[in-house]
Amino acid sequence: MLTLYFAPHTCALASHIALRDAGADFDLHRIDFSKTEQQSQAYLRVNPKARVPALATPRGILTETPAMLAFIAQSFPDAGLAPIDDPFAFAELQAFNSYLCATVHVAHAHRMRGYRWADEQASFDDMKRKVPQSVTAAFALIENGYLKGPWVMGGKYTVADPYLFTLAQWLEADGVDTAKLPRVMEHCARMSERATVKAAIERELAA
Amino acid sequence: MLTLYFAPHTCALASHIALRDAGADFDLHRIDFSKTEQQSQAYLRVNPKARVPALATPRGILTETPAMLAFIAQSFPDAGLAPIDDPFAFAELQAFNSYLCATVHVAHAHRMRGYRWADEQASFDDMKRKVPQSVTAAFALIENGYLKGPWVMGGKYTVADPYLFTLAQWLEADGVDTAKLPRVMEHCARMSERATVKAAIERELAA
Repeated sequence: MLTLYFAPHTCALASHIALRDAGADFDLHRIDFSKTEQQSQAYLRVNPKARVPALATPRGILTETPAMLAFIAQSFPDAGLAPIDDPFAFAELQAFNSYLCATVHVAHAHRMRGYRWADEQASFDDMKRKVPQSVTAAFALIENGYLKGPWVMGGKYTVADPYLFTLAQWLEADGVDTAKLPRVMEHCARMSERATVKAAIERELAA
Repeated sequence: MLTLYFAPHTCALASHIALRDAGADFDLHRIDFSKTEQQSQAYLRVNPKARVPALATPRGILTETPAMLAFIAQSFPDAGLAPIDDPFAFAELQAFNSYLCATVHVAHAHRMRGYRWADEQASFDDMKRKVPQSVTAAFALIENGYLKGPWVMGGKYTVADPYLFTLAQWLEADGVDTAKLPRVMEHCARMSERATVKAAIERELAA
């Protein structure tokens, strides 16, 4: 059995959707950020990084969304969620997910988590002011190239799709003019219609 | 034929070492940062992110170190550079590489690349002051857990090893007290003795 540790409105949603797409049997365990439960001793034993998501498996715990998404795709090959038998196509998928993780999510994180990289309130304010610009620039590369269409990797839906969808949920709060990202927005709208996406969001908000 | 686009003293070294470990036939193409060649039209056609590394393959270009390292391991399976037939072990390796990419490298980047996330000189100075602390914290998790020893993933050398080695090269300039990271330092010293590591560094500095 798999257990996904999550909090609503975080990047854990990507793995949550992927688990549903995979037809996996899994439990959900909500970490309550309002009680800083992510820093509790109990949770630090699950994930010493004090963040979500984490995926408990029979062999141990996995963290980091790109690794978890590849694991889900490889563990449920019948769901066809990644080109796991084609190293080049798999690497293209992984490069996209790595870009979401290390560039897009990091740009976004400077709006609320500036304390990770600085100490002064003036720096936090400066970072926050730049988020619309840095997130827009990061998404422009997706809009104008990486998103092949109709799905991220082209004709076939993969685990890159719930990851892009998840991070695109934050665009409005990040102050990005989404009218400049019509292809990303069309992707979002199409994702929103999928049963697995609806079920995951409904379940997270009810938790 | 593969071509690795690199610049000395960057994270491209990880893929360079891995290509040598794999016994791959490859060319090197240096991008001259002193001439901001990474922003030239010619290089932007290779990698619109204007960064290194990039790996040109017969099927197209790959970017993002975690994706490139997994591609190298999967493309040269006889070299045994990753547990490619074990989704859980492969995911553990990928989680480590993702952490290096999105947390360790990002913490380091705030020393010299603060302009990515802020606009004011005072913010850059603040970020720079915090780098010793944030990079130390990021490496503490490696020192005290993720580095299984003797290699990152335990008894077997993988593509995680050149990646850790590459990022550990920056510790001193980042103002980290390396005496607090004896296991990471021992790993570095052992890596430095490997023929592929020596050859890669010598070749990059001579380029």
